[in-house]
Amino acid sequence: MWMMRATPTLLVDLYELTMAQAYFRTGMTERGYFEVFIRHLPEQWGFFVMAGLAEVEDYLRAFRFAPEDVEYLRSTGLFADDFLRYLAVLELDVEVRCLPEGTIFFPNEPVMEVSGPIAHAQLLETYILNILGFSIVTATLATRMTLAAGGIPIVDFGMRRAQGPVSALRAARGAQLAGWKATSNVFAARLLNMPPSGTMAHSFVEAHESEEEAFRAFAELYGEKTILLVDTYDTTEGTKIAARVARDFLQRGVKLRGIRLDSGDIVAQSKFARRYFKEQGLEFLQIFVSGNLDEYKVSDMLAAGGQFDGFGVGTHFTVSRQAPSVGIVYKLAQYGDRPLHKTSADKATLPGRKSVIRLGGQRFEKDIVKPLDPTANDLLRPFTSAEPITTIQERLQHQLAALPEPTEVTRNPASYPVDFVGFAEQVL
Amino acid sequence: MWMMRATPTLLVDLYELTMAQAYFRTGMTERGYFEVFIRHLPEQWGFFVMAGLAEVEDYLRAFRFAPEDVEYLRSTGLFADDFLRYLAVLELDVEVRCLPEGTIFFPNEPVMEVSGPIAHAQLLETYILNILGFSIVTATLATRMTLAAGGIPIVDFGMRRAQGPVSALRAARGAQLAGWKATSNVFAARLLNMPPSGTMAHSFVEAHESEEEAFRAFAELYGEKTILLVDTYDTTEGTKIAARVARDFLQRGVKLRGIRLDSGDIVAQSKFARRYFKEQGLEFLQIFVSGNLDEYKVSDMLAAGGQFDGFGVGTHFTVSRQAPSVGIVYKLAQYGDRPLHKTSADKATLPGRKSVIRLGGQRFEKDIVKPLDPTANDLLRPFTSAEPITTIQERLQHQLAALPEPTEVTRNPASYPVDFVGFAEQVL
Repeated sequence: MWMMRATPTLLVDLYELTMAQAYFRTGMTERGYFEVFIRHLPEQWGFFVMAGLAEVEDYLRAFRFAPEDVEYLRSTGLFADDFLRYLAVLELDVEVRCLPEGTIFFPNEPVMEVSGPIAHAQLLETYILNILGFSIVTATLATRMTLAAGGIPIVDFGMRRAQGPVSALRAARGAQLAGWKATSNVFAARLLNMPPSGTMAHSFVEAHESEEEAFRAFAELYGEKTILLVDTYDTTEGTKIAARVARDFLQRGVKLRGIRLDSGDIVAQSKFARRYFKEQGLEFLQIFVSGNLDEYKVSDMLAAGGQFDGFGVGTHFTVSRQAPSVGIVYKLAQYGDRPLHKTSADKATLPGRKSVIRLGGQRFEKDIVKPLDPTANDLLRPFTSAEPITTIQERLQHQLAALPEPTEVTRNPASYPVDFVGFAEQVL
Repeated sequence: MWMMRATPTLLVDLYELTMAQAYFRTGMTERGYFEVFIRHLPEQWGFFVMAGLAEVEDYLRAFRFAPEDVEYLRSTGLFADDFLRYLAVLELDVEVRCLPEGTIFFPNEPVMEVSGPIAHAQLLETYILNILGFSIVTATLATRMTLAAGGIPIVDFGMRRAQGPVSALRAARGAQLAGWKATSNVFAARLLNMPPSGTMAHSFVEAHESEEEAFRAFAELYGEKTILLVDTYDTTEGTKIAARVARDFLQRGVKLRGIRLDSGDIVAQSKFARRYFKEQGLEFLQIFVSGNLDEYKVSDMLAAGGQFDGFGVGTHFTVSRQAPSVGIVYKLAQYGDRPLHKTSADKATLPGRKSVIRLGGQRFEKDIVKPLDPTANDLLRPFTSAEPITTIQERLQHQLAALPEPTEVTRNPASYPVDFVGFAEQVL
């Protein structure tokens, strides 16, 4: 049951179905235009990165009510026969406009518009929010870590601490999009065509009679791919043992890859290891680090002179500890020809369909959100299928380079200007 | 691809596989005893609740390398033919001892022991941590909210903000375990045999010409199940319109169920609604509230005299904003007959297999963790399959009642005593 072999169509809040039945019953079949946006940036964040469209594409393609879904709904006693028959043969008639993946965006800018007969578009709310919310969060966080690491490669180590298997997959794709080099998650590596990567665990060292025996057994098997975990007992001693093993292999013509530090004073240990390897004529040994890293720790450790050739990032990436979720919403902006908005105290919205326009050349200057303008160079584009990952990676790198400088920093970023113009009421 | 039809066996960090190959190659086939535990309580938490075993059971049963898994692993170039043949026919030979679901436990107490030929038990590390980590977090959080709500029913509204579909399912089961009444997640409702529940969205109100028209259309269809969302425009006005509609239906002999408040000053609005409904002879109308609720907000709103008949809890529950992950680990405690431990600076462990014993009668007094004692009344019990949910719910309620009082509170709980006795080195 937990293996998720079911169709995803029932991944929906009940009220989407009860509202859809009400639309069906009262003959409300005009097109609804729903907009997805995020109200606020998490603390210390200067931008968001669009992501999740590969999964949205799969979801929309797979969307249909299987006979057992319909039978389950019948069993709840909430739905009439005619509506259940309608669901059983429902084929989605929706159009999607959205920011392409890898686009940088800001709060309150629409990132997607889903339109279709209002019942159809309503049914998609729950799972589209589920997909986009965490995909955007994790892609943005991966991008922030890429910026903090300043060119040093990062590997996704987060599978074990993710909240679920699909969340781990979303995180791995966010990492890929932000240019990370590899993932430890074999399932994600296969699906996303990323290099799988890994070192060794403390248990491997402990299971052997000695650290040295464990290192030799591993190096014997993996040769130049070997990364030795040196902090199981005493890190300085472990580093020296790793060097001894590396020297022996070097004499046989095999250059081991390096070591991993995972606890203690990582900056000091990395400096010691770099110096020691140099003294021993083992400059080729690389130093990988892991252990509760986030973008702040990475940039602080680099500022303190840490000697690193790669970062392994887990918990703080895959569950996005600082921003495990964002206030992402799916709001009805227009029904048929009628622009709509809600006015409730703390959750007001702007009426009608919208365009998002970015001003500036080499450097972005400001964004403008205005009522739909078919002649504009709109950032929201018709979506049919996901782009190749390289296109997305390049878009993100290009846009990062074009961001006004203080907007992209990891701490206390400047606020990027977004103007909302041409709406009857300025309630934002 | 995102629909997770694959077998879960590749949901594993690469190093589990490379270490397994090393064990296989060097003839290390003795039993490894791995322990799962959590190092620290999140801030303000006084206990954890065990959960996740239904999913662990499914995972262990489904564990096998499909031919396409083996082919993928071959393509990485890291694995030799003999090891790939071993994987292709591998049948798990593992035993599990663990706390039954619904058991309350504390930091550094083993919650599960997985033993088997070391390669087998090693391969399970990544996904068992993935399952147990979030299942425990979400069950504990649901329990904390149950305590804060003091008997008022809670409904899981969190699907849209969950990090993925399986995480939403884990959260729904945590809610069920903690005695919540229902979930909005239709998929979870079906799989877990929980009542599905929901009200209406702001979009439904906006799509109609007026709030009153929307309310009447919904009530016409759902009668006594109708809950009207009254905060789309002006909450006081919305509450009065809901009362008017309810009065009309009452004259036809139909008692609508109630209203939902989702923004603004919910305590004041709820007091107004209760008073107004009473004045209008509509005391039967219930007041449901939602909107960024967590256990602190729920208890503060109750303390402020809020008039509530039910809570809908979303974001802060399904992503566990305050503790989106915990430091859950899977450590080798013994290989064959040899007790093991690691001594690295900040991540030391206690050697050998263990028993967990709880002292006290009506009230729990303290826990003792000691080297494996087959004669003890051990909280760790052999696991074969998950128990019925009612058994788990009753265990949790019983244990909550037996907790020393200040341990269970939501804010600044007392620390429950756990002694670690009989180990050669006291490194914790």
